Amino acid sequence: MSPVGRRIVVASNRGPVSFGREASGRVVTTRGAGGLVTAVSDGLAATGGLWIAAAMSEDDRSQAGRTIQVDAGGRGYQVRLLPFDPPDYEGYYDGISNRILWFLHHALWDVPRAPTFEGLAEAWQGYLTVNEAFARALEEEGRSPPGEAVYLVQDYHLALVPALLRERLPRAAIAHFSHIPFAGPTGLRILPQPIREALLAGMLGADVVGFQAPAWAENFLLGCRTLQGTRVDLRRRVVRWGGRVVRVRVHPISIDPAGLREEAAAEPAEAAARDILEWLGDRRLLVRVDRAELSKNILRGFLAYERFLEGNPEWLGRISFLALLNPSRQHLPEYRAYTQEAIELADRINSRVGRADWEPIRLSLMDDHPRALAAYRLYDVLLVNPVFDGMNLVAKEGPVLNERDGVLILSENAGASAELGRHAIAVNPFDVEATGRAIATALEMGPAERRRRARGLRSAVARNPIDAWVRAQVEDLERMGR
Amino acid sequence: MSPVGRRIVVASNRGPVSFGREASGRVVTTRGAGGLVTAVSDGLAATGGLWIAAAMSEDDRSQAGRTIQVDAGGRGYQVRLLPFDPPDYEGYYDGISNRILWFLHHALWDVPRAPTFEGLAEAWQGYLTVNEAFARALEEEGRSPPGEAVYLVQDYHLALVPALLRERLPRAAIAHFSHIPFAGPTGLRILPQPIREALLAGMLGADVVGFQAPAWAENFLLGCRTLQGTRVDLRRRVVRWGGRVVRVRVHPISIDPAGLREEAAAEPAEAAARDILEWLGDRRLLVRVDRAELSKNILRGFLAYERFLEGNPEWLGRISFLALLNPSRQHLPEYRAYTQEAIELADRINSRVGRADWEPIRLSLMDDHPRALAAYRLYDVLLVNPVFDGMNLVAKEGPVLNERDGVLILSENAGASAELGRHAIAVNPFDVEATGRAIATALEMGPAERRRRARGLRSAVARNPIDAWVRAQVEDLERMGR
Repeated sequence: MSPVGRRIVVASNRGPVSFGREASGRVVTTRGAGGLVTAVSDGLAATGGLWIAAAMSEDDRSQAGRTIQVDAGGRGYQVRLLPFDPPDYEGYYDGISNRILWFLHHALWDVPRAPTFEGLAEAWQGYLTVNEAFARALEEEGRSPPGEAVYLVQDYHLALVPALLRERLPRAAIAHFSHIPFAGPTGLRILPQPIREALLAGMLGADVVGFQAPAWAENFLLGCRTLQGTRVDLRRRVVRWGGRVVRVRVHPISIDPAGLREEAAAEPAEAAARDILEWLGDRRLLVRVDRAELSKNILRGFLAYERFLEGNPEWLGRISFLALLNPSRQHLPEYRAYTQEAIELADRINSRVGRADWEPIRLSLMDDHPRALAAYRLYDVLLVNPVFDGMNLVAKEGPVLNERDGVLILSENAGASAELGRHAIAVNPFDVEATGRAIATALEMGPAERRRRARGLRSAVARNPIDAWVRAQVEDLERMGR
Repeated sequence: MSPVGRRIVVASNRGPVSFGREASGRVVTTRGAGGLVTAVSDGLAATGGLWIAAAMSEDDRSQAGRTIQVDAGGRGYQVRLLPFDPPDYEGYYDGISNRILWFLHHALWDVPRAPTFEGLAEAWQGYLTVNEAFARALEEEGRSPPGEAVYLVQDYHLALVPALLRERLPRAAIAHFSHIPFAGPTGLRILPQPIREALLAGMLGADVVGFQAPAWAENFLLGCRTLQGTRVDLRRRVVRWGGRVVRVRVHPISIDPAGLREEAAAEPAEAAARDILEWLGDRRLLVRVDRAELSKNILRGFLAYERFLEGNPEWLGRISFLALLNPSRQHLPEYRAYTQEAIELADRINSRVGRADWEPIRLSLMDDHPRALAAYRLYDVLLVNPVFDGMNLVAKEGPVLNERDGVLILSENAGASAELGRHAIAVNPFDVEATGRAIATALEMGPAERRRRARGLRSAVARNPIDAWVRAQVEDLERMGR
């Protein structure tokens, strides 16, 4: 059976469409962007597939009964949004997914003080309820035609779904894929044992458990070794568990260069580019584009830039740093505090070394996609220095759009470094001095080497076509006889 | 060759003696206490061995030329203190050992913000210099009689010594032992790669690398898998590296119950016991004894007690919590801030639920060993809840001295839990609610079960005699033909 022959059913927290309401009360549909939507839509459309996601707002919930038809390049797929009671969704989404699993897998806790697991039991109940509802919906939707659906379950929000679905459909073809890192065995010990075991066993309900990079696959395997009753082959990446064989695979997700170039050439991005160039003058441009997120390492990025300016005073006034930060999870106090620290640090650096005619750092805190695309086109140096990151698509999108043979500085702890590291300047993201030195190295690099590296980055992205990611997951399942 | 037949040479940062000066200017010698001194002295005395340590103060440095004779139960061993330039020692001790390796292996960093590795290069130079000086001194001192010395190198301060000594004496019998946890593979990625590799390769210079508990041995093996050129057998705990075989072993260190009982029966401890009983009245006693240290989880311990009182109001006024905290590393801002938070949290709880005739928590911040011994004798519940801990000797000393069939609440992340966990109430140290419930369970436990568990704890300690730890390390080396 060829991959396109099977009906694909995707489950993820956030779906490819969301609903809002105009002032008139009319419901409007918004197509989501984001790496997952881009990577999945083609594969879904090819098979007339289905995407099941959570209704995330009141307006989403009002549409939860319908099956929504989404158009993708002339072909279509369906979307179904699952409604949840707000307290259940809150426990599942903020309580467990955002506040525990995200922090755990990115190592973001100040361990002497956090977590304390206040309210864990209720939140876990919500997580269970939502995961069970997904499993139920997948079973229902996958029934016709029977036995043929391929289930692609996405990310840490739905870690229990594979095992819950396996209980209902013992012979189903199920893949789980984590888009974020996976904590190592010591990190996993932070979780209460029943929860740690439920999450591991939940993922092991899949036939194939996928990750963005080898380091995270390895950590998952090491975690499985702590689960009683497993037999783990680290070299072959196989876990034997409950009489079944589970394979662990690495499938780095890609981007759509053609679509991206089209967006970047459109007027909103053109206007943003003119705006940036006016601000920049004849200075060199250092760029970062991130969610305002604790894992993105914004503070150390600013400190490294300050250190670079201190150590290389000849660059004072000859470079500007454009930091485009998309506000994220600002209802969580950790995120508000971190964002505030970033603003204050940028202010401090600007007032310390800035001049009337030179703004060393411009921090922009808004969701401005055209500006990000323009910044990608114009950067001389792109700084991508997360402390830990499942993949990081900025490191792929930037080089594809860049028009200046710009240099990528890339954290060795971003999943993207496995594909792109040798064309980038790799940095240890914790080492502020080394990151500062990397900025100097990038700026002083000769044109031939810049060109060679820029070409290398573009080729590395091109070598991994956007549709390969879904295809590889379906092929994994078929190779296992699923 | 029997273990006692070989001359043992121990290297550690802190030695068994230190020097001070009276007002008159006369130099006075102080014998150190501490688990290592107790565990090592016997073995050293039996072989007329030598202990090499760092001179840690000006007065220590004034004695650095001498070889100091130490009496241990009628037999003796020698001590040599190595002098260092204060900037080298500072880089080695605070810069690398306390501020980087301690934080790394106990997972104490607030990763979005720390570490930043400011000043790392100079500190690392100091660490290298001190480790090299130790290796040189070990080579010199081990020469006569030639080829017979057994080198026992202690802890994270001296991680490079095994490889540096191996370069000088390729056929030497070298063991390294870590008294603290060892970071997992994700934690190790925080270190800059050259430093991570130097530390792993440094320890792999030993024939045997020892740890207090299986989890830390396992983490070291996983770290070695990231070092290019190693072949690691996780099951057999063997690392092949540079044409040599390195074995990884677990040897939990023990305590000296007889010596401890003697101290606890002496007048200073008796006086402290009377003092505690007067304060306590007929209430039940919850005790913790720790250095005021970020890994000891003092804040969550207080929060758990508060949660316990909230959930079990019948215990208000019927229990007191004695927290004996020995000030530690108060020159480091992280430690000052943490200690201050502990004081404020205890104050808050006391003012919230305390009454004129009842102090819910008494926090004592001083080095008062007799009071700790008295508290061990008197507790009904002993709380040992570190986030991560290599071993934790409080969990062994308390039960040996306790006279009330007191219950031990023990973190599952303390090395001691491997030996003692099944006789204790095991807790996930991050889970404040679960720790609060453990306090209730301990207080409500029936006398028969308390007695059974208390006896189990004492037997578990007794089964591991104090001298077994040195003996096992020497036997490991001899079994390898060293």
